[in-house]
Amino acid sequence: MRIDGLQYANWSEKVFRQMRSGGLSAVHVTVAYHEGFRETVTNLEDWNRRFERFPEFICKGQWAADIDCARKSGRTAIFFGAQNSSPIESDIGLIEILHTLGLRFMQLTYNNQSLLASGCYEAEDGGITRMGRQAIKEMNRVGLVIDMSHSGPRSTIEAADLSQRPITISHANPLEWSPSLRNKNDDVIRAVTGNGGIMGFSIYPHHLRDGSSCTLDSFSEMIARAVEKFGIEHFGIGSDLCQDQPDSVVTWMRTGRWTRDIDYGEGSASAPGFPPMPEWFRDNRDFANIESGLRSTGMNDDEIGAVLGGNWYRFFDESFRSVT
Amino acid sequence: MRIDGLQYANWSEKVFRQMRSGGLSAVHVTVAYHEGFRETVTNLEDWNRRFERFPEFICKGQWAADIDCARKSGRTAIFFGAQNSSPIESDIGLIEILHTLGLRFMQLTYNNQSLLASGCYEAEDGGITRMGRQAIKEMNRVGLVIDMSHSGPRSTIEAADLSQRPITISHANPLEWSPSLRNKNDDVIRAVTGNGGIMGFSIYPHHLRDGSSCTLDSFSEMIARAVEKFGIEHFGIGSDLCQDQPDSVVTWMRTGRWTRDIDYGEGSASAPGFPPMPEWFRDNRDFANIESGLRSTGMNDDEIGAVLGGNWYRFFDESFRSVT
Repeated sequence: MRIDGLQYANWSEKVFRQMRSGGLSAVHVTVAYHEGFRETVTNLEDWNRRFERFPEFICKGQWAADIDCARKSGRTAIFFGAQNSSPIESDIGLIEILHTLGLRFMQLTYNNQSLLASGCYEAEDGGITRMGRQAIKEMNRVGLVIDMSHSGPRSTIEAADLSQRPITISHANPLEWSPSLRNKNDDVIRAVTGNGGIMGFSIYPHHLRDGSSCTLDSFSEMIARAVEKFGIEHFGIGSDLCQDQPDSVVTWMRTGRWTRDIDYGEGSASAPGFPPMPEWFRDNRDFANIESGLRSTGMNDDEIGAVLGGNWYRFFDESFRSVT
Repeated sequence: MRIDGLQYANWSEKVFRQMRSGGLSAVHVTVAYHEGFRETVTNLEDWNRRFERFPEFICKGQWAADIDCARKSGRTAIFFGAQNSSPIESDIGLIEILHTLGLRFMQLTYNNQSLLASGCYEAEDGGITRMGRQAIKEMNRVGLVIDMSHSGPRSTIEAADLSQRPITISHANPLEWSPSLRNKNDDVIRAVTGNGGIMGFSIYPHHLRDGSSCTLDSFSEMIARAVEKFGIEHFGIGSDLCQDQPDSVVTWMRTGRWTRDIDYGEGSASAPGFPPMPEWFRDNRDFANIESGLRSTGMNDDEIGAVLGGNWYRFFDESFRSVT
């Protein structure tokens, strides 16, 4: 079973067909970066239309059982996540409302300080805020997973400690393999895996050693080492595939409406757009390459199955139900 | 089984306890009069809090099966409805979003012209609008019941004819029994019942013959006559109980934010507030009185059971699922 822990493609029949070719049973897709509540709902409306238009390829994912259903019918279950806490605005009641609408992941921050925590691009990481503590409690209650991919180290460690349920870093890599504000040091990875959580390995070039030129061997060896260090059950793939998106989308991701200046984020003035993907992972059809890469590190079938989907499946199964 | 097809009380533990005393297995409650989408969501958040606070009395109703579950556990299932189309603003995609959040009824209009149809207080009833036709189709698809309680006669008849699924007048009475802009003439009742729909008899005093002084005998005889004329399977109770509400609430119902003038609606300058309920129906505890009233008209147990809840149960069971 293959599950991708994060994608934000320019959704189309082509992309959904490629998910099928790649054998993806479930994909966590982003429905908000900087959008407020009403705009996020509009994005969910767009997904309702896609489920109507492409019922032979995709179905709405709300529970782990929907992955089983998708597999049986040869489809991909689409699970919603927000990369920021902007969709709940300053209203904690919206956590349950969005969960009812299908949201299953929410990042507490996206690069910047939020009402809940500090982002990984801030000079100061003040940790989890007053509202952040309340939000974590409420997300735990309703079954909305805390995702700290774009948060600062202190905020992430505090979130892992405060949360009564496992949390995630859905898409990032170990800092020691590739230095980047978005990659995670050992203390952070230990906090997240120590609370039972999962980290998804990112294939976004700015998170890779040597960027777009990163080799499959290097990526696979990095996985093998992390798995050895922190335990195989705590890792999956979160490809961060942003397929077919115009560069205006990466500009939106980086600047939203929070700045009038240009902010290149992980890019630069000379390379402001989306970086090219490594040649061994062009799109969803290339999950078989990752499987080969992992195999050549000496991982066996069970281990490869856990990293490529089994761990996410277990995590979905444990995480999305409300506590009653 | 007793089901009330419309209430808008000042919700409290007291009211929920009285629902249990009255043996109510389900109640359709109003969550919007003039609220836009975001405000309606806030009202749904308030209901989420009530379900948390009073789990021994109430539970969220989404499907007919939730009524069975409520009966077994000695609770009342609460089904959401909007008395206006204001919650969908001008966005047809919000119909499915609100259905996902639990909305099961939506009036196309509340007294005034809406984007979808004409209200019963307008001088001109232009019938179903262009967007109204699209909304009816979409409501039919997702399983959101069209409620025409506050609509004009032409709009109501057109809605019944256009709708592929049964519609409702959740709370009103026959015009011939008590003349009121809110009560319905035979052509309207025939259109709604003819499409398989249901009308709920209102106990709101302005809809009753002799208002607050209406006798139980008169009310019961009116029911017996309507049932005889249009068929027993097409009627239920929609009490329109507005218990414990301050008069500011009836002002909100009548004027929302659409006027700067005072509009007394069914009231008057000398009696601008909520009218007193008839002495035989003070609150939810008095459903037994209606049962006695119906029995004294000669109706048998099956017929009484159909009007007090059985018909609504069947209607809920047929109406709330999406067409796939």
